Amino acid sequence: MTFALNADVLGAIEPPIAESQTWIAGRTFPAEKPLLDLSQAVPSYPPAKELTDHVAERAAHFETAQYSVIRGLPELRQDLASHVAHRYGGSLGPEHVLISAGCNQAFCMAILAIARAGDAVMLPVPYYFNHQMWLEMQGIDPIHLPFRFDRAGVPDPEQARTMLTEKTKAIVLVSPNNPTGAVYPPEVIEQFRDLAAEKGIALILDETYRDFLEDEDGPPHRLFQDEKWGETLIQLYSFSKTFSLTGYRVGSVIAGPKTIDAVTKIMDTIQICTPRISQYAALYGLRHVWPWVAEKRAMLKGRKEALEAAFRSNDLGYELVSAGAYFSYVRHPFEDLTAKQVARKVADEQNILCLPGSFFGPDQERFLRLAFANATAEEMPELAKRLRASLAA
Amino acid sequence: MTFALNADVLGAIEPPIAESQTWIAGRTFPAEKPLLDLSQAVPSYPPAKELTDHVAERAAHFETAQYSVIRGLPELRQDLASHVAHRYGGSLGPEHVLISAGCNQAFCMAILAIARAGDAVMLPVPYYFNHQMWLEMQGIDPIHLPFRFDRAGVPDPEQARTMLTEKTKAIVLVSPNNPTGAVYPPEVIEQFRDLAAEKGIALILDETYRDFLEDEDGPPHRLFQDEKWGETLIQLYSFSKTFSLTGYRVGSVIAGPKTIDAVTKIMDTIQICTPRISQYAALYGLRHVWPWVAEKRAMLKGRKEALEAAFRSNDLGYELVSAGAYFSYVRHPFEDLTAKQVARKVADEQNILCLPGSFFGPDQERFLRLAFANATAEEMPELAKRLRASLAA
Ligand SMILES: Cc1ncc(COP(=O)(O)O)c(C=O)c1O
Ligand SMILES: Cc1ncc(COP(=O)(O)O)c(C=O)c1O
Repeated sequence: MTFALNADVLGAIEPPIAESQTWIAGRTFPAEKPLLDLSQAVPSYPPAKELTDHVAERAAHFETAQYSVIRGLPELRQDLASHVAHRYGGSLGPEHVLISAGCNQAFCMAILAIARAGDAVMLPVPYYFNHQMWLEMQGIDPIHLPFRFDRAGVPDPEQARTMLTEKTKAIVLVSPNNPTGAVYPPEVIEQFRDLAAEKGIALILDETYRDFLEDEDGPPHRLFQDEKWGETLIQLYSFSKTFSLTGYRVGSVIAGPKTIDAVTKIMDTIQICTPRISQYAALYGLRHVWPWVAEKRAMLKGRKEALEAAFRSNDLGYELVSAGAYFSYVRHPFEDLTAKQVARKVADEQNILCLPGSFFGPDQERFLRLAFANATAEEMPELAKRLRASLAA
Repeated sequence: MTFALNADVLGAIEPPIAESQTWIAGRTFPAEKPLLDLSQAVPSYPPAKELTDHVAERAAHFETAQYSVIRGLPELRQDLASHVAHRYGGSLGPEHVLISAGCNQAFCMAILAIARAGDAVMLPVPYYFNHQMWLEMQGIDPIHLPFRFDRAGVPDPEQARTMLTEKTKAIVLVSPNNPTGAVYPPEVIEQFRDLAAEKGIALILDETYRDFLEDEDGPPHRLFQDEKWGETLIQLYSFSKTFSLTGYRVGSVIAGPKTIDAVTKIMDTIQICTPRISQYAALYGLRHVWPWVAEKRAMLKGRKEALEAAFRSNDLGYELVSAGAYFSYVRHPFEDLTAKQVARKVADEQNILCLPGSFFGPDQERFLRLAFANATAEEMPELAKRLRASLAA
C-alpha cells in the first residue's frame, strides 16, 4: 500500500508560471512581430563581470566549500546592517541580520518563526503566489486584504483593521509590489506598522525590489528610525534581482535579535547555512557593485517612463493601474472575458506574453501583469500598438 | 506591543553543537597533549582541485547566475538516477529525482510532503538532531524508537511495529548512522520497508554517508530492485560529505513521481531551486571525481580500522558499540555520571572533544559520539591511551 501525500501540499495553489509557457509552446514568431515576453521577471543581463570574477577566485579556497556559521558570514551581516542603516536611517547591527538562501526562504522562515497551523496571516491581493502557497502548505489561513483599484494598488490599513482576527499573527506587505509594481508610500507602510504594533503582531515587509527605487526619493520607509522597530518589523530582502544573482540563492531576514534567534534555529534545521559561495557573491556586490546597480536602475526607469508615456499618449482601452521596479498592472477593456482569456488572446493575436491577474488571487479578472522590465524602452510604442490592435480583433 | 514567537520553534530542542564548543573556549593545549577534536564531522580536506576549477569556470557563464528549473538541472537528475540505478540495481529515471539544497532541506521537504501538524513520524534514537527539530517545529509528534545496545545500534523493526500509531506517516532511518556510525544490514532495511508498505506509510532513508561504504560489500540495500519501490521509499542523499562540498548545499530526494511532484511544489515555494553553481559542482563530482572519493574512503576506512584495533587491544573500560563512515558510538564506564559530565571530563582532563549521547535523544546517558573521521589512524593509539587515563583521574 502506498503512502498518502499531505493534503495541505496537494491543495495549495499550483505555481502558474509553467502554464503560461504552454500558451506559446511550439509557436514561431515572424520577424516583424516578434514575441514580447512580459511574463516572468528575471534580470535580462548577467551579473557584473568583476563580481563573477570574484566568485571564480573564491572557488579556489577550501573555506568556500565549508559550512559557514548558521546566520551567515559575520562580515556580510555587518555590511548589510550598515548598508540598511545608511539607506533607511536608524541603527542596526549584525545581531539583527540573518543571511538566507533567497527571499522565498526568508519568507518561509519568518512565517514559521511566528505562526503555526491554525493561525492566520494577512496577505494583500494580488499576492506573490509563493507566499500564498507557503501559508497553505503550513495550514495557516491566508486572510486576503482586497485589491484597491481606487488606490492604484496600495492596500488600505483601515480596511485591514476590520479584517484582522484573533488568530492573525502577521500582515505581509511587498513593496515595490509583485505583481502590481505599486510602490507603497512610507506613510501607508507606517500605518500598517502602527496597526501591527497595536495588535501585537508582526509586519513582514518583502523588499526584494527596493534597489530599483531612486535613492533621491529618500528611504523606502522610515520604520528603522523608530528604535523599537524590532518589536514589529521583519524585513525580507533578496540579492537576486539587485545584483542579477537569482541562481545563487541569497537574501536576508532583518529583525529583532530574539526573532533572529528563532530564525537561526529554523535555518539550522532546514539548511544549516546559505551557500557560502553565494554569500561571497552578495558581499562583493554590497561592497563594490553599486555603480553597476545604478546603471541598471536607470535603464529600468527609462523603460518604465517609456511604458507610462506609451499608455498616456494613446487611447489604448487598457489602463495602467501601477508600475514600478519590474512590474506593471493593467486593467484590460474586456468586461466579458476572464483575465486568462485576455492573456491568451494577446498571446495568440498580438504575440504578447503576460500573466492574468487571476494567477495572483481572487477578483483579479480585469487585470494583467506586464513585467515591463523585460522590454526595452524602444519596444514600448510597439507594445502599445499591439494592445490597441487587440481591441479591434 | 511586540509579537509572540511560534511556541513550536521556541520549544524545539536547541542545536547542541555550539554548547560543546564552549567547553574548550579560551583554552590552549600543550604540544604533547593537543586537542583531539572529535565533536563535529565535516570533511577535513578540500574538494578535488579539478572540481573547484570547474566551479570557477562555470562562474563566468550568465546561466550560472540564473534560476534553474525547480527540480534541478536535467543532466544532473539524469546522471544521479543512472548512478543510483547502477549502484543499487533497479531502474530509475530523472522523473524520480529532485535536487535539493542539501540533505537537511531534502528531509524537511520529504516530511512536509507527507505529514502535517498533529501527525506522527517515527525516529529511532539516537536521532540526527535536525530531524527531531524539524518535526517539533512542524507540530509533528516524534515517536522515538528505542536505541538497541544489544543490536549494536541497529533498530528493531518488530519493536517499531508495536509503536506505530494511526497517526504515523513515516519511519525515518539514517544509514550509515549519525550519531552511531551503525550500518544497517540490507535485511533490516527491507524489514522496515515491508512494515512501512504494510501500513501504507513512507520509509524515509537518509543516506548522507553512503559513499563511505565499500562498493565490494554490494549495494547498501536492495529496495530499488523492487519495481514498486516508489510506493514506499523516499531516499535522501547529500553531496556534502562525498565530495567535500558542505558549503555548497546540494543533495537530493529520490522518490516516486507523484512524491517528486509534491516535493517540487514545496521546493518552488521555499527556495525556487538549488543554487545553480552548486548543481554544477555536484554534476562534475558525479561525472569525474569517483577515484578521489575512493581515496578518501580508503583513508576513512584506515581510520576506522585503527580505531577498532585501538579499542580491541586495550582494556579501555570504554566499549565500542558501533563505527562506520564518520562516526563511532561508545559506551563509557561511569555509571554515576551523565553523558555530558563524561564529555566534559574527557575535554577537561584528556583534551578530547566529543559529544554526549544525550544530545541525540532520551536514554543516552551512557554513550558518547566520537567523530573518529577527524583523527588520523596514527592518532588512534593516543586516543585509546587518553581514554584509559580518564579511568584513573
Ligand atoms: C516579491 C518577491 N519576493 C521574493 C522573491 C524571491 O526572491 P529570491 O530569488 O531571493 O528567492 C521574488 C521573486 O520573484 C519576489 O517577486
Ligand atoms: C544524517 C545526516 N543527514 C543530513 C545531514 C545534512 O547534510 P547536508 O549538508 O546535505 O544538509 C547531515 C550532516 O551532518 C547528517 O549527518
